[in-house]
Order: sequence, then structure tokens, then C-alpha cells
Amino acid sequence: MKKINVAILGLGTVGRGVYQILQEDAEKIAHKEHLQIFIKKVLSRSYHLDIPEEQKTANIEEIVNDPDIDIVIEVMGGLEPAKTYVLRALAAGKTVVSANKQMIANFWPELEEAAKKSGAGFYFEASVGGGIPILRAIDDSLQANTMRSIFAIINGTTNYILTKMTAEGLDYAEALRGAQALGYAEADPTADVEGYDAMYKLSILASKAFHARLPIEHVYREGISRITKQDIQYAADFGRVIKLLAIAKRRGDDVELRVHPTMIPLSHPLANVLDSFNAILMNGSAVGDVMFYGQGAGSLPTASAVLSDVIYAAHVEKPRYATFENRMGFVSPILHFEQNWVCPFYIRLTLLNVPGALAQVTKQMGDCGISILSAIQKDAREDEATIVFQTYPAEEQALQRAVAGFQEMQVVKEVGAVIRMED
Amino acid sequence: MKKINVAILGLGTVGRGVYQILQEDAEKIAHKEHLQIFIKKVLSRSYHLDIPEEQKTANIEEIVNDPDIDIVIEVMGGLEPAKTYVLRALAAGKTVVSANKQMIANFWPELEEAAKKSGAGFYFEASVGGGIPILRAIDDSLQANTMRSIFAIINGTTNYILTKMTAEGLDYAEALRGAQALGYAEADPTADVEGYDAMYKLSILASKAFHARLPIEHVYREGISRITKQDIQYAADFGRVIKLLAIAKRRGDDVELRVHPTMIPLSHPLANVLDSFNAILMNGSAVGDVMFYGQGAGSLPTASAVLSDVIYAAHVEKPRYATFENRMGFVSPILHFEQNWVCPFYIRLTLLNVPGALAQVTKQMGDCGISILSAIQKDAREDEATIVFQTYPAEEQALQRAVAGFQEMQVVKEVGAVIRMED
Repeated sequence: MKKINVAILGLGTVGRGVYQILQEDAEKIAHKEHLQIFIKKVLSRSYHLDIPEEQKTANIEEIVNDPDIDIVIEVMGGLEPAKTYVLRALAAGKTVVSANKQMIANFWPELEEAAKKSGAGFYFEASVGGGIPILRAIDDSLQANTMRSIFAIINGTTNYILTKMTAEGLDYAEALRGAQALGYAEADPTADVEGYDAMYKLSILASKAFHARLPIEHVYREGISRITKQDIQYAADFGRVIKLLAIAKRRGDDVELRVHPTMIPLSHPLANVLDSFNAILMNGSAVGDVMFYGQGAGSLPTASAVLSDVIYAAHVEKPRYATFENRMGFVSPILHFEQNWVCPFYIRLTLLNVPGALAQVTKQMGDCGISILSAIQKDAREDEATIVFQTYPAEEQALQRAVAGFQEMQVVKEVGAVIRMED
Repeated sequence: MKKINVAILGLGTVGRGVYQILQEDAEKIAHKEHLQIFIKKVLSRSYHLDIPEEQKTANIEEIVNDPDIDIVIEVMGGLEPAKTYVLRALAAGKTVVSANKQMIANFWPELEEAAKKSGAGFYFEASVGGGIPILRAIDDSLQANTMRSIFAIINGTTNYILTKMTAEGLDYAEALRGAQALGYAEADPTADVEGYDAMYKLSILASKAFHARLPIEHVYREGISRITKQDIQYAADFGRVIKLLAIAKRRGDDVELRVHPTMIPLSHPLANVLDSFNAILMNGSAVGDVMFYGQGAGSLPTASAVLSDVIYAAHVEKPRYATFENRMGFVSPILHFEQNWVCPFYIRLTLLNVPGALAQVTKQMGDCGISILSAIQKDAREDEATIVFQTYPAEEQALQRAVAGFQEMQVVKEVGAVIRMED
């Protein structure tokens, strides 16, 4: 039976899950996988678990210089010291398994080069979709496909907030407080609610799926903090729900990458992905639509993905690396990152109750080349009215021009919301 | 760049898909995978494709005796001659990739032994869930989990028929004819509609997931041919849909395996799996609920899974085999196959309109230890009435006793339906 020694960097939520599974299920894993995994060191600032003294260390040198340690599991999160530690481990020839989307999205080329240089493996299934086995499916199960598109719910916090707003008619602020109280959202929720976390994950996921490096700089990003319960109600009136989607599309060398609130029909496979669940819907040239659904975060689900990498790496003779079509870090000569995507839009305006107001607004849309599918007056008061538009598919830039025009009109009191739609 | 030669056995729907992808996308696959795949031979009785003469053969000996052929792709289906050909290829040390659920479900131990003996690989991702990458996910992505349960829609034909019955209020016979006209159902639909196909797949899938050989003899099987549009309507009244589910549950050494029509709530993740799509929902000790969704059949989706095995096998240095806890072919000393599962039931009875009829029926249920959640009179005519019951969770055998009792009662004109429920 093969034996390996691992070191765990970080003992937060995920680290504790990894430790727990290796403690409780070591025998089962050994039996099924013919593999014994021993925890040699755990690096942490503090230890909330009952851990043998000889496993504890605060010094990365004790790990990278220990020839018995085969695999380093980085579950600290954040950029530093995680990146320095991972580079040190890779340079020492140790395979690294990481769940750190922020680090990987930002420094993938550098990390992968370091792995290649020493021949170490570098795996990060847990960085996207928590427990959902999506990255290995792309690598080892969908190889015969040219992937065309990704539509993904890959942030559990925002999906939880939007689910609560939808099911219980809550305001964003109320739903956020509820998520914070339950530990689904951080005290400073910015990384989740403004879409940074989803942006990191989309960059990693789409790079793998499209076999091209797609840096975060090219991901359009918009969060959910301006979504109102009115917009969710109006979406329901159209048979739609609002989800924070991470979207990637590729046609030839044209790529579009975007994270934003999106109205999708109730019949969409992602519409019923509720609470903190994640799901990734991809379309491939051979397989067609394929979707993966599961817990996108949490201690044991994320540890499931981390340990899947550890076990996989232990069986692999010779690691393989990403076969990007464009060179590491250099993307611009080859790919065109499309910013002017085409989709239908939902627009909510508050107009003054004066003759010709609607005519001015609709003329502006027509002048910008935007066709209107429906215009519905939702809420008429004495001096103003709320109008909700659905457009036919229109160019993003045309829409932005129209909105800029609205903002200069006397009759437009407020551009309440502009939300992209997908079918 | 690595080069491999393959032979394709069978040029039906799946074989043509494999041939097409290897023709059209060879360059893309070579680029991404550093692997060139050449088709050396295609064995078929007839050739509907334009295939070079030197690739054609009707003689398996030309394939198994050709030292240049590395991988044999068996996409003929059926037991013979597929099994003989596969055993010949494995004996000759050639890795075999197969989509043949019937052959694998029936002869897995023998096939795997043959592979082990010669050191050949044996892969069959396409045998379950068509294009959905489920078997490799179990092997390579969910290794840290003890799998607890599987709920799966793994027969596209029956899901298509039930979807049409539900959406359009069709009778079973009408929906079947429509499926046959579209090529979704065979002229003789027995293998699909009576649950044999799902039974083969469940045996393979659950064996992989539970790391134990679970032969088809232990799978309870019931098809959809007796489902009526009334039952679908009554299910809708309860907020439920009827799906043909393949269910496997394991607790310790207790296993239950069953394929039957099942009423599930509209909010269930499988409720919105429509038309010919498949989906597999599993629960693991670490990952929790995880679901895989996609095309369960069809030329290119199934070929996607076949080629994923071919490419995977080409990269693997040394094949691994199923690590079943019980010995090949011998299951009874270790596992207990539970036939007396517990679930809520839906029962539709036609009762004569005589005083005390309902009392007799409900007393019978009480005597059998079955508690009634609801009893609703659906359709009352002058001399008879339809009553629909939902029970609390009850033992299968108690239910069977109750039904046997109904059938001897004067007041029961007909036991119209007994359908199991899951939440």
C-alpha cells in the first residue's frame, strides 16, 4: 500500500474539514484507494482542534525542508503568506493542493511555472464550486469537447441572499444581515456581494474549460448590492428569477466573461438552484448541455474536493499541466475579449407624470438601436410612475448609451435598475 | 506527441458519433491532450458512413491480432457477440472502452478479471448517463466520501414519455407513440419502459458508488407502462411529479436497490429534469448532495463519454480496477439486500358506493400498520368512487399485505395504482 505524508497550511473552516476526514475516514480511504495518508504537520497561528504537539508548526521551513512531506495542502486563503508558502513548497518539489481562488486567479502563470520547473503537481479542484467536481471533469471527462459556454452560480453567499429575498420578499439589507447571522456572509461582505469571489472562480473555470488563460482583468464584474425586492417581484411577474451568474462564452477567439445579476426564466436549469448551493451549466460541442450541482462552500464539501486532489495526485505518476493555447500571462495577441455582448435587458425607470415622458424615453431607446419587447407601468403615483421595460437582445454599449441619455432627461427621475437577461 | 490506434466495434448511433468526432476534432484533441488518435479498423456489418476501405473489417481476429491496435471501442450493444469480442480483446492485452450497460451489468466480474489478467484497462463511462461524467467523478473526484444514496433519472426514453404525459396530459400509449415517432423509443420499447435499461445502469452506478458489487438480481424493477394520466394529475394536485427513478441507499452493509415510478415533490432537484435529459443525485459523507445533469443518450453525447475514456486510458500508466469490498461475483456473505424498504405510498382505489366501504379499506391499512396522511375522493359516480390515499412512511411488505387484502374485498372494485414516494 502506498503511503504519503501531507502538511496542512491553515486550520480554518476548510482545514478543519480536511483534518477531520483524514482522522475519521483514513481507514476507508486506505481500503478503497490502497493509499495511506498521514498528516505530518499542520501550520496555523492557533489550534482549535486537539492536535498532537509534534504535528504543530508555525514555521513553513519545517515543512518545505522536510523530505518526508509529499503534498502540501494550502487552505489558508488570501494572497500572502499563502503565495510565498506555495511557491516555496513547489520549488522544493512538493505537490501543492490549494483551495485558494484569489491566489490562483491572480498568479496562476507564476504558480504553474514553479510547479513545472520542479516537476511538482499543482491541483486546485476546491477553488471553484466547493465540493462540486468540476475542474477534473473538464480535464478528464470532457476532453473530446470544445466548450462553448458556461453559466454558473459559483457564489453561495449571494445565492443565499437572493434566494431569501425571492422567497421571503426581503430587502437586500435584511437578507444580508440574515446571511451574516448564519455565517453565510462575512462581516465585510464585499468580496462576495460585489462579485469578486465569483470573478476569481470564473477566471479559473473558464480558463480550464476554454483552454486559454483568461485573467480577471477581462472579467466584467457587478454585484448584487443594488438589487431591490421590487426588481425581484417584477422579474417574477415575467416568470423570471434574479441570480448572480458567472457567464463565459467563446466563439473562435472571441471570449466574453462577465459576472452580474441576471434574470433567467423559471424553467432555466439554474433557476432552482437555491440557498447556498452552486451549479455550473456548460455547453460542449459533443456533450451538449451538462450541469454540475452541489455545495459550493463549507467545511466538509470543500474538504471533499481538497482530498480528491490529494488522492488523485498520489496516484498520478507524472503531473500534467494546463495546456493553454496562449502563453502564460500573455493573452492579448490571440484572444479578443468582447465587452459589447448582446443580451435582452430589463430596465426600471421612474418617470415624471408629464405628457410625452414615455415617448422621450422610448425614442431614446430607438435612437440607440434598442427594440422594446414590453413596457409595463408598475406603480403610478400622482407625480411620477415606475415603468419596467424588457428589450429585445441589444448590444451592451447601445444600452449604456441609452442609459446615459436617460440620465440627462428632465422627465427621468431615476434609472432604478438595469439588469441583463439570459434564456 | 503520443500516438494511439483504436478499433471501433459497431457503427450504430454511438459508433458514428465516435467516428465523427475523431474525424472532425482530431486536431483539437491532439493540441489539448498531446495525443493523436488514429482509427485503424471499424468492424461493422454495414457502413452508412464514407469510410476508407482499409479501415473496414468484419473479422474480429483482424483487430485482436493486430499489434498496432491499442484500444478497442465496443459500441455494438447487446450481449453477443459483444462479450466474446471484448473478452478476446482484453485477453490480447488491449484496453477496452465500452458503452454496453447490459453486458457490463451482467458480466462485470468476468470482464474485469480478464482485464486484470492481461493488465489491460477496462473503462465504461458511457454505460451510465450517456454524456454525463459520473463514473469517473466517483473514481477520481469523490474518493474521500462514503456514498450514502443515489437518486437517478437514467433512462431518457421513460423520462421523455413521462414529461409529455405531464406537460400535455397524454395517455401512456399516446406518449409512447410520440416517442417512437421521434426515435426516442424503440419499436419494442420493453427494455426502456419496463425499467431493464435503468436496472443495468443502477447496478453499475451503485456498484461504483458503494464500492461493492451489486448484481442486477438484487434490483427491484418496475416500469412505467401502468402509469395513467390520472395518477399524474393527482400527483400534481399534491405538488408532485412522477419520475422513473433508480434509487440506491446504503447504510453499513444494508443496501436497497430499486427502479420504479416515484412521486417526488416539485421542489426536488430531479423534478425539473425534463424530456430525454438524465440526472444523478448522490449524497456523500463529505460532499453532501451533489447532482450531475446532461444528455443521457444520443450520438455525440455518448461519444463524448466514450472518447473521454479513450483519452484517459491513453494517459494512464497503469490501469486501476474496481476495489470492491466483496469478492467478484460473491455478494451474499457480506451485504444484506433490503427488500422491505420504507417510504410513503400513493394508492388509488376504485370503491363501490356502499356504506362502510372506506371504513373497511382504512381498517385494512391500519391492521397492516400503515398510517394514512390523506384520503381524497377524486371522482364519485353513482355506483363507485375513486379514492386517493397518501400514507405516512410504511414498510413495503406491509403495503403489499394491505394491497393483497384490498384485492379480496367486495367493496374494492379495482386497485388502480400503487406508487412509491420520496422526498
